[in-house]
Amino acid sequence: MPEVAPFTLHEQLKADTYTVTRLALCRVLLLNDSSVPWLILVPEVPGISEIHELSILDRTVLMEEISRASLALQELYAPDKLNIGALGNIVPQLHIHIIGRYKSDRAWPGPIWGTAPGKPYKPDDVVAVCARLRERLRQ
Amino acid sequence: MPEVAPFTLHEQLKADTYTVTRLALCRVLLLNDSSVPWLILVPEVPGISEIHELSILDRTVLMEEISRASLALQELYAPDKLNIGALGNIVPQLHIHIIGRYKSDRAWPGPIWGTAPGKPYKPDDVVAVCARLRERLRQ
Repeated sequence: MPEVAPFTLHEQLKADTYTVTRLALCRVLLLNDSSVPWLILVPEVPGISEIHELSILDRTVLMEEISRASLALQELYAPDKLNIGALGNIVPQLHIHIIGRYKSDRAWPGPIWGTAPGKPYKPDDVVAVCARLRERLRQ
Repeated sequence: MPEVAPFTLHEQLKADTYTVTRLALCRVLLLNDSSVPWLILVPEVPGISEIHELSILDRTVLMEEISRASLALQELYAPDKLNIGALGNIVPQLHIHIIGRYKSDRAWPGPIWGTAPGKPYKPDDVVAVCARLRERLRQ
C-alpha cells in the first residue's frame, strides 16, 4: 500500500482564519474579516485540489455541508446574496468559500475575492461569533 | 394548487451564451468568450437564486453535473485550475460557473468574473466547440 500523507490545513488558510467546527467531511473556518460573513469549508481529504477529485460520496456530503453553511449565514446575517466559490488559484488545497454579500459591501456587485481585506475580528468578539456559528451549523 | 411559472432562461444569460446541451437538472451554456473555456450550469427550476433552495435530490444531481462539466473542461482544455462559482449578484437566477483558468489568462490569479470580456467565438467555430463539449458531457 502506498503511504498516504495525513490531512493538514494549508498554512495560508491557517493564518487567515479561525476554526469554527468540524463537520462530517469539512473543517469550517471563519475568515478573519469582520466586515463580511465569510466561511471557508475545507474537506479533510489530503491531496485534493478540485471538487471532481473527491469521491462521489464525499461530493454529496460536501454539497450538504455547503447548504448547511449557506443556511447558517442566511439566518444569522441576512445577506442580500450568497456567493459560493471554489477557486484555489493561490491556495491549491481544495476549499470552498461561502460568503454573505451585501449591496453595501466593498466589492458589490463584483466578486469579493482579492479585494482589499476588511477589518480583523477583535479577539474577544470572535469567540462569540464562532460559538454562534458552531451552534447553528450543528442543528 | 398555486400556479407555478415555468422555467425560462434569464435574458442576460440568453444574450451572453450559446446552449451546449441539457442534462438531467441543468441547461449547460457556453459563455461567448473564446479566450477562456467557460461553462454555465443553470438548474431548470423556476424561482431559485441560491443552491440551498434546491431540493436535496436536485442538489445531489447538481453536484454531479458540476463534476461532469469540470471533467469535460479538464479533459478538453487542460486548464491550470478550475474555478467554480455561484455568485448571482447581477443575474439572480441560480447559475453556476465552471471556468478553466490558466496562469496566462487575463485575470490570473484573481477572480475572472467582472473583468473585461474576451473575444467572442466566430459563429463557424462555436458549432464545433459546442458539439465537442456536448459529446464529452454525455459520456
